[in-house]
Amino acid sequence: MRKFLSVAVAMLASSQAVADDDLMKAAKQIFTPIPSVLPAVKNNAVTHDKIELGKMLFFDPRLSASEIISCNTCHNVGTGGVDAGPTSVGHGWQKGPRRAPTVYNAVFNVAQFWDGRAADLKAQAKGPVQASVEMNATPDHVIKTLTSMPDYVAMFKKAFPNESSPVTFDNFAKAIEAFETTLITPAAPFDQYLEGDANALSAQQKAGLKLFMDKGCASCHNGINIGGQDYFPFGVIEKPGSDVLPSGDKGRFAVTKTASDEYVFRAAPLRNVALRAPYFHSGQVWSLKQAVGVMGEVQLGAKLTDKEENDIVAFLISLTGQLPRIEYPILPTRTDATPPPSLGK
Amino acid sequence: MRKFLSVAVAMLASSQAVADDDLMKAAKQIFTPIPSVLPAVKNNAVTHDKIELGKMLFFDPRLSASEIISCNTCHNVGTGGVDAGPTSVGHGWQKGPRRAPTVYNAVFNVAQFWDGRAADLKAQAKGPVQASVEMNATPDHVIKTLTSMPDYVAMFKKAFPNESSPVTFDNFAKAIEAFETTLITPAAPFDQYLEGDANALSAQQKAGLKLFMDKGCASCHNGINIGGQDYFPFGVIEKPGSDVLPSGDKGRFAVTKTASDEYVFRAAPLRNVALRAPYFHSGQVWSLKQAVGVMGEVQLGAKLTDKEENDIVAFLISLTGQLPRIEYPILPTRTDATPPPSLGK
Repeated sequence: MRKFLSVAVAMLASSQAVADDDLMKAAKQIFTPIPSVLPAVKNNAVTHDKIELGKMLFFDPRLSASEIISCNTCHNVGTGGVDAGPTSVGHGWQKGPRRAPTVYNAVFNVAQFWDGRAADLKAQAKGPVQASVEMNATPDHVIKTLTSMPDYVAMFKKAFPNESSPVTFDNFAKAIEAFETTLITPAAPFDQYLEGDANALSAQQKAGLKLFMDKGCASCHNGINIGGQDYFPFGVIEKPGSDVLPSGDKGRFAVTKTASDEYVFRAAPLRNVALRAPYFHSGQVWSLKQAVGVMGEVQLGAKLTDKEENDIVAFLISLTGQLPRIEYPILPTRTDATPPPSLGK
Repeated sequence: MRKFLSVAVAMLASSQAVADDDLMKAAKQIFTPIPSVLPAVKNNAVTHDKIELGKMLFFDPRLSASEIISCNTCHNVGTGGVDAGPTSVGHGWQKGPRRAPTVYNAVFNVAQFWDGRAADLKAQAKGPVQASVEMNATPDHVIKTLTSMPDYVAMFKKAFPNESSPVTFDNFAKAIEAFETTLITPAAPFDQYLEGDANALSAQQKAGLKLFMDKGCASCHNGINIGGQDYFPFGVIEKPGSDVLPSGDKGRFAVTKTASDEYVFRAAPLRNVALRAPYFHSGQVWSLKQAVGVMGEVQLGAKLTDKEENDIVAFLISLTGQLPRIEYPILPTRTDATPPPSLGK
């Protein structure tokens, strides 16, 4: 009897091992780990000088009209690359229409913004600085401000050594993109798992991963960023409440003007998702577990059990990677030629 | 003849050396170099754990009502420890009444704020977080927010190991004070000069230093912080224009209710002054040279020549020290118990 039992236990353990192995194999086909080297970007060689310049620009509030709002104000690298939400606050205390997307791992997204209206990070970087509800500046303000400070001019010359007049709005955006390629977060437990370490995830996290694939979450949230690769309607099965999906924001429809793109958004990339409540483009759901529940209902038509939600949340927590160390830049000093702040319209 | 000339030149050079020596001797009696070790503060042992916690609190916007304004918003360590001015912008896009004072070397001031109404940095730290035109929070919001995040609770326990309930508003302020003791900027050219290196200042900077002492600037701007040690009327000789000295702000009078304190302010500490235009408590003068000219007229009754102004500015530039390297803190993650942002009154 004791023999029988121990054989049975061994068989169970071994079938568990096979199941574990299958799970890892299946996960490897759907997801990709974050690399530990900087990714290359299109038409923008990423150099050390460009990264250093881009870091300064990212943290420099003087590029906004009020001179108190920087990229980091809404994409705060200390809080998961986002602000406190629900949507961002910009020039004149105006509320922006959507939740700030994270800068972390944004380089891996197929396109930028919730509706993918910018092809890449250098195109994205030109948006908020000009948006009247965000930084409310103009390319002219940016260039005048940068040109007024000799240290910036010198850094642009170093970062773009083959150009005779390197202080341009295009190069401003390219430098920011270069810095943002450094904002990647490798070595999450899930990355270690994808790289073959079966012990990197707990039993509950593995159960959550299995559910994430079996229930269909991974149909949209896959690839290197566990999302961010394609566009899908919000409310495939059932439309969420108007708090979560305000009727005035039709998502990708504004980009493509195609009826089938109404309420279509880029699938949210789920890397470090546990760091950045509130959730969805409307920022109206503050609990990750509740967000998982909403997704189950409106995207999959599935009422997840409490245990299933907890397991999936446990898996999502395994997507928290190692955030880069960032030294706060000492910014060039303003001169008498630097435009003064403007708080009005 | 040639012999006579060379003797004369040698005599001149030697009298120059004597004058140089006298200048350094005189300067050493009036000014003190910034130390390269952290200064001690009263009733608050500065420990590594307290500094680390204080750094997080300093950079954490979630302690404000809107959750987008941190200490660093107005006391930006990347731009000389101040914002872009003229006065700060706070909750609801309200304009504050005075220019943000710098956090750099603030630990060396006799008291904090332009009117000295806070005895030290831990008293100061409690002000802006509660001011309705600044962060507009309450001690209750601060404590609820901090208590909602286990990582903060653990850090308070480490920073205040002998207390059973260490997450208090007093300890919040003490941790920020501890961090701010690290915001000192030693090794400015002028410090090197005070430590005996006669070559640390250029000839023009020495001329500026001599003027700074001879004309009387050093009567108020002296000591370790080249100011920040005592209170003086703004407009000793002649009242500045109402743009620079708005009649509604009577300075230290609001603290002491003493008629002789009308329009009295703490002498501005001039360390790193070249980094932080605009100048004065009203932030209405954008050029350092112009600020020097205003001071000459209204405080000393002296119309400085163009050369004198340039020499003094050259000296003031020698007060720019080495700013500390600050790693941007990764902040604790909000939980479902963290109070949401509130943008209204």
